[in-house]
Amino acid sequence: MDTAPPISDRLEDLETARDDGRQKIDWAFQHMPILQSLREDFEDEQPFAGVTIGMALHVEAKTAALVETLADGGAEVAITGCNPLSTHDDVSAALDANDAITSYAKHGAEDEDYYAAIEAVIDHEPAVTVDDGGDLVFRIHEEHPGLIDSIVGGTEETTTGVHRLRAMDEDGALEYPVIAVNDTPMKRLFDNVHGTGESSLASIAMTTNLAWAGKTVVVAGYGHCGRGVAKKAAGQNAHVVVTEVDSRRALEAHMEGYEVTTMAEAAEKGDVFVTTTGNRDVIAREHFEVMQDGAVLANAGHFDVEINLDELADLATAERDARDGVREYELEDGRRINVLAEGRLVNLAAPVSLGHPVEVMDQSFAVQAVSVRELLENGADYDAAVHEVPDDLDREVAEVKLAAEGVAFDTLSEEQEDYLQSWQHGT
Amino acid sequence: MDTAPPISDRLEDLETARDDGRQKIDWAFQHMPILQSLREDFEDEQPFAGVTIGMALHVEAKTAALVETLADGGAEVAITGCNPLSTHDDVSAALDANDAITSYAKHGAEDEDYYAAIEAVIDHEPAVTVDDGGDLVFRIHEEHPGLIDSIVGGTEETTTGVHRLRAMDEDGALEYPVIAVNDTPMKRLFDNVHGTGESSLASIAMTTNLAWAGKTVVVAGYGHCGRGVAKKAAGQNAHVVVTEVDSRRALEAHMEGYEVTTMAEAAEKGDVFVTTTGNRDVIAREHFEVMQDGAVLANAGHFDVEINLDELADLATAERDARDGVREYELEDGRRINVLAEGRLVNLAAPVSLGHPVEVMDQSFAVQAVSVRELLENGADYDAAVHEVPDDLDREVAEVKLAAEGVAFDTLSEEQEDYLQSWQHGT
Amino acid sequence: MDTAPPISDRLEDLETARDDGRQKIDWAFQHMPILQSLREDFEDEQPFAGVTIGMALHVEAKTAALVETLADGGAEVAITGCNPLSTHDDVSAALDANDAITSYAKHGAEDEDYYAAIEAVIDHEPAVTVDDGGDLVFRIHEEHPGLIDSIVGGTEETTTGVHRLRAMDEDGALEYPVIAVNDTPMKRLFDNVHGTGESSLASIAMTTNLAWAGKTVVVAGYGHCGRGVAKKAAGQNAHVVVTEVDSRRALEAHMEGYEVTTMAEAAEKGDVFVTTTGNRDVIAREHFEVMQDGAVLANAGHFDVEINLDELADLATAERDARDGVREYELEDGRRINVLAEGRLVNLAAPVSLGHPVEVMDQSFAVQAVSVRELLENGADYDAAVHEVPDDLDREVAEVKLAAEGVAFDTLSEEQEDYLQSWQHGT
Amino acid sequence: MDTAPPISDRLEDLETARDDGRQKIDWAFQHMPILQSLREDFEDEQPFAGVTIGMALHVEAKTAALVETLADGGAEVAITGCNPLSTHDDVSAALDANDAITSYAKHGAEDEDYYAAIEAVIDHEPAVTVDDGGDLVFRIHEEHPGLIDSIVGGTEETTTGVHRLRAMDEDGALEYPVIAVNDTPMKRLFDNVHGTGESSLASIAMTTNLAWAGKTVVVAGYGHCGRGVAKKAAGQNAHVVVTEVDSRRALEAHMEGYEVTTMAEAAEKGDVFVTTTGNRDVIAREHFEVMQDGAVLANAGHFDVEINLDELADLATAERDARDGVREYELEDGRRINVLAEGRLVNLAAPVSLGHPVEVMDQSFAVQAVSVRELLENGADYDAAVHEVPDDLDREVAEVKLAAEGVAFDTLSEEQEDYLQSWQHGT
Repeated sequence: MDTAPPISDRLEDLETARDDGRQKIDWAFQHMPILQSLREDFEDEQPFAGVTIGMALHVEAKTAALVETLADGGAEVAITGCNPLSTHDDVSAALDANDAITSYAKHGAEDEDYYAAIEAVIDHEPAVTVDDGGDLVFRIHEEHPGLIDSIVGGTEETTTGVHRLRAMDEDGALEYPVIAVNDTPMKRLFDNVHGTGESSLASIAMTTNLAWAGKTVVVAGYGHCGRGVAKKAAGQNAHVVVTEVDSRRALEAHMEGYEVTTMAEAAEKGDVFVTTTGNRDVIAREHFEVMQDGAVLANAGHFDVEINLDELADLATAERDARDGVREYELEDGRRINVLAEGRLVNLAAPVSLGHPVEVMDQSFAVQAVSVRELLENGADYDAAVHEVPDDLDREVAEVKLAAEGVAFDTLSEEQEDYLQSWQHGT
Repeated sequence: MDTAPPISDRLEDLETARDDGRQKIDWAFQHMPILQSLREDFEDEQPFAGVTIGMALHVEAKTAALVETLADGGAEVAITGCNPLSTHDDVSAALDANDAITSYAKHGAEDEDYYAAIEAVIDHEPAVTVDDGGDLVFRIHEEHPGLIDSIVGGTEETTTGVHRLRAMDEDGALEYPVIAVNDTPMKRLFDNVHGTGESSLASIAMTTNLAWAGKTVVVAGYGHCGRGVAKKAAGQNAHVVVTEVDSRRALEAHMEGYEVTTMAEAAEKGDVFVTTTGNRDVIAREHFEVMQDGAVLANAGHFDVEINLDELADLATAERDARDGVREYELEDGRRINVLAEGRLVNLAAPVSLGHPVEVMDQSFAVQAVSVRELLENGADYDAAVHEVPDDLDREVAEVKLAAEGVAFDTLSEEQEDYLQSWQHGT
Repeated sequence: MDTAPPISDRLEDLETARDDGRQKIDWAFQHMPILQSLREDFEDEQPFAGVTIGMALHVEAKTAALVETLADGGAEVAITGCNPLSTHDDVSAALDANDAITSYAKHGAEDEDYYAAIEAVIDHEPAVTVDDGGDLVFRIHEEHPGLIDSIVGGTEETTTGVHRLRAMDEDGALEYPVIAVNDTPMKRLFDNVHGTGESSLASIAMTTNLAWAGKTVVVAGYGHCGRGVAKKAAGQNAHVVVTEVDSRRALEAHMEGYEVTTMAEAAEKGDVFVTTTGNRDVIAREHFEVMQDGAVLANAGHFDVEINLDELADLATAERDARDGVREYELEDGRRINVLAEGRLVNLAAPVSLGHPVEVMDQSFAVQAVSVRELLENGADYDAAVHEVPDDLDREVAEVKLAAEGVAFDTLSEEQEDYLQSWQHGT
Repeated sequence: MDTAPPISDRLEDLETARDDGRQKIDWAFQHMPILQSLREDFEDEQPFAGVTIGMALHVEAKTAALVETLADGGAEVAITGCNPLSTHDDVSAALDANDAITSYAKHGAEDEDYYAAIEAVIDHEPAVTVDDGGDLVFRIHEEHPGLIDSIVGGTEETTTGVHRLRAMDEDGALEYPVIAVNDTPMKRLFDNVHGTGESSLASIAMTTNLAWAGKTVVVAGYGHCGRGVAKKAAGQNAHVVVTEVDSRRALEAHMEGYEVTTMAEAAEKGDVFVTTTGNRDVIAREHFEVMQDGAVLANAGHFDVEINLDELADLATAERDARDGVREYELEDGRRINVLAEGRLVNLAAPVSLGHPVEVMDQSFAVQAVSVRELLENGADYDAAVHEVPDDLDREVAEVKLAAEGVAFDTLSEEQEDYLQSWQHGT
């Protein structure tokens, strides 16, 4: 397959793009205290000297701060997007201006073009892969197995990517170690809950100009993303309805005070629907058929399969763009169903969207940075499997963050340590 | 003074503008069930037939739905903006395409141009004025007193406008009746709390890409706007600090669980500051001097006087645009203070801003519509003073809204009515 | 009618009772910083010297702190209860031990006994009456009109009492001035919302041992009490359903995110019901007929008329005490409906109940104290009508409280004062 | 060591006690739908026929419902308390009235008596032990190692107990399998968060009559119990300050919006302190020295070591009972520090306390019941170690609960199951 050219060969007004991208990256980096601290260390220690890192991430300002942090630590980086709609061309161009970085990410790339960019990254023969959704790992395994021997390991950013990698691992098909950044507490507890929650809701609000107060918001899935969306929507005075397929999670949502029911029931009640399940067809024909006029549908899961748009298009007698980022489907009986960002993840793909908040990505990408460092330092200790982020790395990131925020916490006294380890005392 | 020309004489690609504006208005109107219901009635009854209405409001899609509702009820409307930065030219153009409506609102109008547009509206010799901030009322009193006799009355949308009108009233200077829409429960309880709260925070988030979780957010003022901002920020996991000048409001905020202190103390702690006081110099030199590096400042009050930008510019050694809608002031010691939307009201003037949520304005503008109807029907009952919205009009709007949302409520039985009116019973 | 004897003549182990009551009063007074501050002033100034004050309040520790504060300011006080179940005999006895105070309050007094105690208080020929529910005012008007000329005025503590007094006022039947303490911000905003909210829920939880998380809690009425109950229940992870008869309040609850519906609908859904309406028969036969097995009913309104117990007893095939403070009614189909505290106000009448939290009553009773002082100082300025608490008295209490809590707030600069009073400036 | 006699041999008015206890148990069991459902099954299947079960739990109504469920399933049960202050003698007596149950639990037992009761339970030679705090396991290992061979296994209810068992396990000292009920999702997510949170706060409120609104509440520890206390206190409008020794938990609390700091700092600010750490000396001399007058201290952790009362008594110049359940320590400078329930766990040991809410214990004890069933069915599969509750048992309990609450949830379609298991699809 052909490889795509770098972004710099594809933009008309490259200088302006680079300036715009640089301004965006500077703003983000100013609000990323953990990466700031790590970058200082990496500049001194050059842990990535001579190493090629291949990346497929959402190419926007915050990601760029990670990329530059790795480059300043000595790496040669090749990067492309992991979603055709999430790339900011100006940021891509600003990265590509760095001698140590080649960026192939291009906004709105069509399928062939998208994969050609992935091929271009692989063509750099990376020693470490950094994925968001697993595209680099999968393509290398499928199309370039010869490269595997020279790869130290990879990291994976999202739930969905990890899910796919674990399936691959169980099939015995994963041939190099991958650290599941997504699963580590410093990522999971903040990125998914706070990041997805806040940014999805802000994107929906700014795309539609609708209010949360008094709205019935149906949240499909009560994993980390779902509970972030539910909590932040309720915190803005929405009435939240949760749907789940897992009994314990359903019970958790119920005990939190949310209304819990099936999507079949919820479909009739919802004003706004947000899917966060990682699964397909969560909202489908039977649900469209009973929704209220004017219902708004958005997806906050990785892939655009959660809302079955084929079935919706099939039901519709007319379609139009009701607003930038809003596709309106008119049904036979006149009801209108509005889908945001073509069902792609709304906090990245909606026209106004900026992705996750800066500070949240600071945490997540700081874990990425120390995980890549770990693979290079101790990669031999990891077998070809999906691995958790080592706990001490995860805590390292937490401590850097608290120090940066000026938040103090206690330490155990010797007597307290002893107490926790003893078991001889009675009631 | 000269009058400005209508927007249609000033735009280059008028057709595109009108199409874009129409699309925006259609979206808004679809989500404004109260105005939809009132418009149906007005089309039948033509309560405004032959009446000229002068308006100075934020000219964007939701406002347009009110304007068209009045026009469909028989009015001739002349409108301009009430803030140079809040006008959407495409919406202005779409309105101006209506034979019954002339729109003079132009985005980014300089001072002279802004007042020339107000003059143009007044030139239509309106029988009713609809203001947001009081500019029409003031200008008519100051420059065109001869028109006053033919004016039935006016309405005023905002806290600040009402504040100024009451001062004018107390001075004996107000010469026609004005209904204070701002003060009515259906406006005050929803627009200010939910509308300003949600839209200010979403605008700040989408302008900065920063998160609320873990942030210290200083809210200046604990009136309706302030408590909306505080509640919604806390609902997104910010740590909220409130400043107040009123002892009872300070105590209310304290009893709600917020940290309450002076701005002098709060200035050192805040990550983000939102002013909602309606007063000047709420954040000034002494506060800038102690703020943290990277502090973000936004104003949610009507006028751009709450943050003293002159003093900040004075202190700064450098300024630059850090981001679209973010002005960064660098102080001598390297600290950076970021001001959003030039200190103008952030939910209208920030580049990404859409103003108040649609449904919230639906309530507020429905009160406007029935208040204008009231002035025309019963204007003779109102003396030259600031008047409250009659309670039955306010309730009319509440009932239309509940019906539209499908929310049922109870009615008193005859026995219950009697009980409430009796007082003879013992313990 | 006969008058009741003082409590000291009616208790067997008077010394123990007095000691127990004293301990309770000391605890309360320690946590009442506003009354502490006022008492110091009153001891110096003796504003009530030579004045007889008649009181009918819930006689428990917090009330006692008010009574002693008035007595220490020079008053002779005669007091009885305003609800047969809310009196603490030990507190009553401790008060009665004070030479300046006579207490007739007795727990569980039967009707005749209850009114005999009211008669005993009136027999002291008070110059000021302090009521909670209006019993003193009503009885004086009905039975002792001859006393009215010598009465300076009265104060009233509750919504229900004020409601009855206003009705009386409108009928032209009120013959001396009464200050509606209940309506003043310092009472209304804290006592009703925080006091009733927290103490009702804690009483219900401690009477039933049931949890709030995951429960469907139906709150009847969305006035100050109702919104306190709703907010605190939701804050403990209940799913809250609100019923209302007022369209605007129904809309407020809806916009807050609560489910709003009629009691007919809510009756089928609720696990726990709390009435806060001040009206009768809010829960009645048609609702009992559709409730779930095990439903728990509690009243947080002043009178025991909100739940129609006659109709419930009528429907029931069996009754028993399921628990201390819980009456279980078994219906024909086996469903059990549990009524707390005989439908009397649950935060006072349930066996474990302690009434409103100490600090909340500190605010409310501080307003009582300064209102009584006001009547004695300026009673001549008040005509025979229901009066609001003068705003400066209300603020006096707020400022004393903030000072006691160490909470700082801002003051307006001269420029800011001027700005608020000016209206000449444009946009 | 001597063994204690059954409770029936120790109470004076046994019949009344049994009646009172029966009434309490009946109320609890009515609100325990999961145990109701399991008991029906167990009555049919007799899974515990011929088995002796030894238990050391808080002996009150909810626990009794578990005990009777096991007895109805065929077990012979011997039970005692796990905390001298948490036993309800009437419930103990009601249990002891059952032929299949012997109860040794006695309220306020002194140390020797407490352990004699444990000995009495062990004397029954149980095949299964059910512990809350580990006393049975520890005493059997230390004093009766000869019994170990005949023990199938045990279960443990609390964090602290599991903590001690794991330490024992790591030392190689644990000689029979124990299922850590405490760690299972159905226990951990509900009992600790909702149960401890709600019941601790309600106990503190009802013991002190103080309000949460406006209070500064210091929560020591941000594990499951701590976050429950923090959330429910904030939900009642307290200002919450969290202290932690774990960096990630500290960061979680910070990101939730709470103030986070060291106990040394928090000690100066707090109005109420609640310890939930499971560790000793969390509040000690250095903290008492800076606390505000009137501070209230309560412990919600298993053991009474979290507040160092020896150091407090040492600092105090006087002590007295300020209220039932409140010990006041007066310091040299006049400041008063109030300790609830002698520093024992406040939701069980305070005079008004009822322990965890019924429904929450229903979940936890349902897990206990199915875990005991599991040990008897499949005990041979478990080695001598601390084991997690098998996931399918935990889910069984969740599903029974949702069914009982009438909460519906979705099931995966075949296509969705396939999707989740596949990994071949691209973006």
